[in-house]
Amino acid sequence: EFLSSQPSSMASKSEPNRNPNYDPKKPHITDTPMTRKNWYKHVDWLNTFFIIGIPMMGLVAAWWTPLQFKTAIWTVIYYFWTGLGITAGYHRLWAHKSYSATLPLQIFLAAVGGGAVEGSIRWWSRGHRAHHRYTDTVKDPYSVRKGLMYSHIGWMVMKQNPKRIGRTDISDLNDDPVVVWQHKNYIKVVLFMGLIFPTLVAGIGWGDWWGGYIYAGILRIFFVQQATFCVNSLAHWLGDQPFDDRNSPRDHLITALVTLGEGYHNFHHEFPSDYRNAIEWFQYDPTKWSIAMWSKLGLAYDLKQFRSNEIEKGRVQQKQKKLDQQRSKLDWGVPLDQLPVVEWEDYVEQVANGRGLVAVAGVVHDVSDFIREHPGGKALIKSGLGKDATAMFNGGVYNHSNAAHNLLSTMRVGVIRGGCEVEIWKRAQRENKDVQFVKD
Amino acid sequence: EFLSSQPSSMASKSEPNRNPNYDPKKPHITDTPMTRKNWYKHVDWLNTFFIIGIPMMGLVAAWWTPLQFKTAIWTVIYYFWTGLGITAGYHRLWAHKSYSATLPLQIFLAAVGGGAVEGSIRWWSRGHRAHHRYTDTVKDPYSVRKGLMYSHIGWMVMKQNPKRIGRTDISDLNDDPVVVWQHKNYIKVVLFMGLIFPTLVAGIGWGDWWGGYIYAGILRIFFVQQATFCVNSLAHWLGDQPFDDRNSPRDHLITALVTLGEGYHNFHHEFPSDYRNAIEWFQYDPTKWSIAMWSKLGLAYDLKQFRSNEIEKGRVQQKQKKLDQQRSKLDWGVPLDQLPVVEWEDYVEQVANGRGLVAVAGVVHDVSDFIREHPGGKALIKSGLGKDATAMFNGGVYNHSNAAHNLLSTMRVGVIRGGCEVEIWKRAQRENKDVQFVKD
Ligand code: HEM
Ligand code: HEM
Ligand SMILES: [Fe+2]
Ligand SMILES: [Fe+2]
Ligand SMILES: [Fe+2]
Ligand SMILES: [Fe+2]
Repeated sequence: EFLSSQPSSMASKSEPNRNPNYDPKKPHITDTPMTRKNWYKHVDWLNTFFIIGIPMMGLVAAWWTPLQFKTAIWTVIYYFWTGLGITAGYHRLWAHKSYSATLPLQIFLAAVGGGAVEGSIRWWSRGHRAHHRYTDTVKDPYSVRKGLMYSHIGWMVMKQNPKRIGRTDISDLNDDPVVVWQHKNYIKVVLFMGLIFPTLVAGIGWGDWWGGYIYAGILRIFFVQQATFCVNSLAHWLGDQPFDDRNSPRDHLITALVTLGEGYHNFHHEFPSDYRNAIEWFQYDPTKWSIAMWSKLGLAYDLKQFRSNEIEKGRVQQKQKKLDQQRSKLDWGVPLDQLPVVEWEDYVEQVANGRGLVAVAGVVHDVSDFIREHPGGKALIKSGLGKDATAMFNGGVYNHSNAAHNLLSTMRVGVIRGGCEVEIWKRAQRENKDVQFVKD
Repeated sequence: EFLSSQPSSMASKSEPNRNPNYDPKKPHITDTPMTRKNWYKHVDWLNTFFIIGIPMMGLVAAWWTPLQFKTAIWTVIYYFWTGLGITAGYHRLWAHKSYSATLPLQIFLAAVGGGAVEGSIRWWSRGHRAHHRYTDTVKDPYSVRKGLMYSHIGWMVMKQNPKRIGRTDISDLNDDPVVVWQHKNYIKVVLFMGLIFPTLVAGIGWGDWWGGYIYAGILRIFFVQQATFCVNSLAHWLGDQPFDDRNSPRDHLITALVTLGEGYHNFHHEFPSDYRNAIEWFQYDPTKWSIAMWSKLGLAYDLKQFRSNEIEKGRVQQKQKKLDQQRSKLDWGVPLDQLPVVEWEDYVEQVANGRGLVAVAGVVHDVSDFIREHPGGKALIKSGLGKDATAMFNGGVYNHSNAAHNLLSTMRVGVIRGGCEVEIWKRAQRENKDVQFVKD
């Protein structure tokens, strides 16, 4: 009902990276268990060819292709451009709208993002929004709960039941002309930006056509793919969870180094519309640096950022949660409401009969075994037996440490009826004099 | 009154390391402010000569004294022995009674402890107990609040008003024959164990009388003194405070390395009767290792140890304190009890008049400025306006993150009379149907 205004996110036959023979009405292959006989039907052979087959052929071809220095430099540069196309473009601009970009920047990012060969902006963002909205559930397209390899490439090389993926609102993307154009012309974009353009640069630039094709084209695609796939695998598997540990996203420097700064992923899942992934200046987030630079140049604007107050609140809450877990594992003594209630007179009588009891803050403690161990000496602790020792214990004679308070609570045996304040007052009345605490 | 059974801890004329001309009845020099004319009267020249003068002479003499390899080894060994005399003997055995020792071990520790030239067991332990009981106050004999140099050697090279030092119970030490004997024969013990014995070993052993005297005697005394003084200075100045940060004691590896393991000083002040200072096996505490070894050999027994439950409680409490401090610095939104109370009908009417209000968990929030920024899209957040959006916000449509809850609380503008549960019930009654939450 709430989602009725959205277009259906069910698979349509026009999706790239999806088998055109797929018919949403027939039972899907993923509804059949995998067996020795049908396993090859579960594999998405087209994706497997793109993600694993072509790079293999590239590796073999590289054996006969000498790597020129200029081509190497160009490969690294184009690796960063196409990587940024995914991280700054597909991810932070379109999937999360964490900032706005002018048309030239949009076109640049749509182009180099296409050169990374990871699907159209529209297809990628839809899956990514489902990943955020349904993280770690069956509706998460690359849930790490299905295994690290599954979240890395398994979800692409094995066939998916498109009905399984959670629905998300992509109406804004459907209204975006650059996104729609790139989606419609996806195959052309991929061929040109993925292979032809890098080959042209190296060929026209310094005559290394073959090197440009193999290194800046095929092998560069392989490395960019593997690096950005790490956001789905490594970033949900390795590192700390300073903001929320209910789900799998984690922060780690290594993931950040591999993914152009997308490695502070626990932060990112908590604050997905922040244009930053790293919030400290010393953390590695070249995607953030690029967006900030484009903003300086007037190419990007409206950079969204959570206030540090909100971020610190998340951190404090997660720390509190951890601390509460630690606390609940410890023995804090018998809870007060489970102790028997004793009359003050009974307490005094029991001590007169030789029991080593001492009342502190309205609670009776059995210190018999502790008297000879007391670091303050036997005499002092004995001087509290049968009395209200609250004041002496809390500074009147000696201001005991937290450790002493904790130790005391393990010796609880009862509560005085009316608590200690009441008793002090009663005795003061009885002895007809003012209440006074000795302060050293 | 409580302390009346203790012997007075005021200075007596028989104390070693104290000017025999001192008369407790006359006004003390420390009651007079230091001026350019009387400063030399404030200096304790005897202590200065022992702590600074003699080592200087030793350094000069070392210039003409070649250091033999065997003497060097012996110096290091004797450094550790006399150091352990202070840490395992004076400190953990006598001052804190953290374990018991058989007579042979007591005699060994009283002897080598004397060789460190830091006063008698009785004098040292009394000051140390005052240091624990009155840490960081004027009654603390070596309070770091008076400066790092003061806590290191200032308290010895400057005259002290003995009346200032806090009183402590040393009746157990007065009953201890080894302690009393060492105190009475202190000068003899110091001369023999500090200088004569190390000289004899090197002289009779390998003929290096002069080297034994200068290196294993004088200079070794200097190093042991400076090292153990670091417990009073460095251990109250450098490092972390995992158990209690109200006072100055701190934990640091460097201090531990310098002081034979006394560097986990925050722990030690919290659990002074524990025979360990380091509780982890990988921390450096050779004093603990020695005591444990003596216990294996039957020389030590009754090693006292706090249960790890008690230790962890202290750690959790300190972490909680830090967290509460962080929490109190953040803005958690207007507290509920400071918000105006609104009728449900008023809330609905205001939204009908165009205000962007949404009620979640009985609290009205103004989300007007947030609608177009909402990461879940305008449509969804708008669908909550003028309604009770508690269930949709908490999982009915989308299970929002902690960050979203925190953000929401900054937008509070009022509370619904009766709270949300009451209103849900009222409406259910009105509409004559069961209450149901949509669960995805
Ligand atoms: C009732 C149970 C008591 C417990 C569990 C207890 C525990 C402790 C502990 C653990 C210490 C070591 C220092 C510290 O951790 O703060 C200590 C020291 C001390 N306690 Fe108690 N105590 C008790 C009662 C008393 C009473 C009734 C008095 C005095 C009337 C007293 C006087 C002292 C003094 C003077 C010290 C300081 C010892 C020193 O460092 O010289 N204690 N106590
Ligand atoms: C009332 C104030 C609201 C605030 C402050 C708020 C805040 C947020 C925030 C910060 C997110 C980002 C993800 C996260 O941090 O969990 C988010 C996502 C979302 N919100 Fe809200 N929200 C509000 C109301 C609503 C309402 C009323 C609905 C639905 C009726 C809704 C539906 C969603 C959905 C579906 C998402 C997921 C977006 C995606 O990742 O695709 N929100 N909201
Ligand atoms: Fe993720
Ligand atoms: Fe994301
Ligand atoms: Fe200390
Ligand atoms: Fe101590």
